[in-house]
Amino acid sequence: MASKGCLIPLPEIRRFINDSMISAGSPESHAAMMAEVLSAADYRGHFSHGLNRLEMYVKDVMTKSTDAHATPVIVSEKASIALVDGRNGLGPVVGNFCMDLAMKKAAETGVGWVSARGTNHYGIAGWYSLRAMAKGFVGLSFTNSSPLLSPTRSKAAALGTNPITLAAPAKGDSFVLDMATSTVAVGKIEMQQRKREPLPPGWAQDKEGHITTDADKAMEASCLMPLGGAEETSGYKGTGLALMVEIFCGVLSGSKYGPFIRSWKNTSEEANLGQCFIALDHSAFDSGFEDRLSHLLSTIRAMEPANPEKEVLVPGDPEKWHMKIVDEQGGIIYHKNQIDSSMQLAQKLKIAPMKAVN
Amino acid sequence: MASKGCLIPLPEIRRFINDSMISAGSPESHAAMMAEVLSAADYRGHFSHGLNRLEMYVKDVMTKSTDAHATPVIVSEKASIALVDGRNGLGPVVGNFCMDLAMKKAAETGVGWVSARGTNHYGIAGWYSLRAMAKGFVGLSFTNSSPLLSPTRSKAAALGTNPITLAAPAKGDSFVLDMATSTVAVGKIEMQQRKREPLPPGWAQDKEGHITTDADKAMEASCLMPLGGAEETSGYKGTGLALMVEIFCGVLSGSKYGPFIRSWKNTSEEANLGQCFIALDHSAFDSGFEDRLSHLLSTIRAMEPANPEKEVLVPGDPEKWHMKIVDEQGGIIYHKNQIDSSMQLAQKLKIAPMKAVN
Repeated sequence: MASKGCLIPLPEIRRFINDSMISAGSPESHAAMMAEVLSAADYRGHFSHGLNRLEMYVKDVMTKSTDAHATPVIVSEKASIALVDGRNGLGPVVGNFCMDLAMKKAAETGVGWVSARGTNHYGIAGWYSLRAMAKGFVGLSFTNSSPLLSPTRSKAAALGTNPITLAAPAKGDSFVLDMATSTVAVGKIEMQQRKREPLPPGWAQDKEGHITTDADKAMEASCLMPLGGAEETSGYKGTGLALMVEIFCGVLSGSKYGPFIRSWKNTSEEANLGQCFIALDHSAFDSGFEDRLSHLLSTIRAMEPANPEKEVLVPGDPEKWHMKIVDEQGGIIYHKNQIDSSMQLAQKLKIAPMKAVN
Repeated sequence: MASKGCLIPLPEIRRFINDSMISAGSPESHAAMMAEVLSAADYRGHFSHGLNRLEMYVKDVMTKSTDAHATPVIVSEKASIALVDGRNGLGPVVGNFCMDLAMKKAAETGVGWVSARGTNHYGIAGWYSLRAMAKGFVGLSFTNSSPLLSPTRSKAAALGTNPITLAAPAKGDSFVLDMATSTVAVGKIEMQQRKREPLPPGWAQDKEGHITTDADKAMEASCLMPLGGAEETSGYKGTGLALMVEIFCGVLSGSKYGPFIRSWKNTSEEANLGQCFIALDHSAFDSGFEDRLSHLLSTIRAMEPANPEKEVLVPGDPEKWHMKIVDEQGGIIYHKNQIDSSMQLAQKLKIAPMKAVN
């Protein structure tokens, strides 16, 4: 095994996640959905949300904080909307069910809007918008999450990093936005801490609620700032967007919301998260959507950059490059620490460890 | 007339806008809609979008760049969606038509999603979400606009300030988000220029595409930065949100989009803007939405502030305070310059000038 990392082919990553979830107590079909979502995160370069999270989901299932056998049910519906109760099932099981329902309604009426309660962390939000895009729809998804973000002016956190994702098909191209409504995720602050480098102002607050550039103080407080940062740079807009996501998720569905969501990685109570899924049939409006989007994206990419070495990108471009590299090298290269903890998990769950190709 | 400003009652403001639009060539019912939207902007404290814009709309009508007589038509529809052609009519005429259509569909199917092309500047985006909220719906609206925002890394502007608005009813309360996806609007930079004060980094770029704190250089370049500011503070998320709005507006409807929209205040060609309107019937999901939202908003406002003198607010609070002041003083106090230019407009259009009460 190379000291720098190990190359693991995608099917082997999925096999390992699948076996882990089954060993923890998940039915095969549900384990497969988890394997799909987590491997997609790593494939797209969002390592915080992939294999890195497997132990958390395994623990949720083993402690019965999540019911891996549960399947979602529709609580109420009309032609274009539905409220779903996830019955504390695995996030991807609930999420796939909801987005499939939203697409079914969109195919009939033009748009489908599904809100879910009683659900759990569902991996990268982008998975669900991509699922809709793969069928030709414009897909959106939102989820609330454990409090980590301080509303503008607040000393402490009261909202999650509440992501927004939109995926839209373009001719020979695509637009894939998948963003937290905080300036950055906790993982980015951890990285600065490890490198002993200061944080740009606008990422995080200290325990007194003041902007800090000290990664240690930021990690101690666990208070991310909303997109926009300080009030003078319009951080209240990021707060507004995080609240918009909470309205679509917790308030609409009747799940937990805001500061009443359990703290991060606490498994002593059910998560009861809220999520939202929208599918839009662009072809019901007019033809030519994919041509126009392709034209817009090409135009933006062709804008003259301020720094000639940094070309203009559109949402989804960094992920496309990452997937291309993974395809070329025949798998994902994981850091040794990630491999080591996967080995330990394999021993604990009595399953075959991931097999590297180098 | 007091040198500091003049107090004008709301009905007199509406009368003046109404008369101006009729004199310019607008039918009475269409003039009334413009008067409603512009006076609502000033009432809510968004002075850039109220009386300040009247001359622009008058000019659009007099030069026939906008067809004040046009009424919108439905191009295509399904149970929950519609594509509307505004036929180059006044923005508020098209906007009200579209939001009313979205509400009709939402009442039947749970959600209505209407996209419009061939439309014009429609005033504050929040007017349309408020219109839906007044009928008990959750309302959203989006519009594209003339290029003023530089996508992250781009030297020049290629997108509009593309606002997002969401209004949602709460028990004895409300949530009203109405925000540009740029860090700030041009008006805020003009104010710093007038005060000879520097800009916070993250507001604007200079002609070379670099972040500037010099208001003169910022005004010369006319390049606003996206919410989030620089790349290291996640300005690419603001760019992504501005593009999301453009997908809902120009790409979905087939109007002009991005850098192909006419430059600001150019009346030599039709604007052909794109707009989007969504109404959501929260009661179709479950009961209790308004109670939960009220609880969430109260909880956020009650968070301990980092600075005891600056209490935590939620979107819509500053506007509520402004409306309370206007109600108490019996009207809006306009700056002398605004009053002077309204007097000139009255002379030009041969209508009665606004009558102040002080």
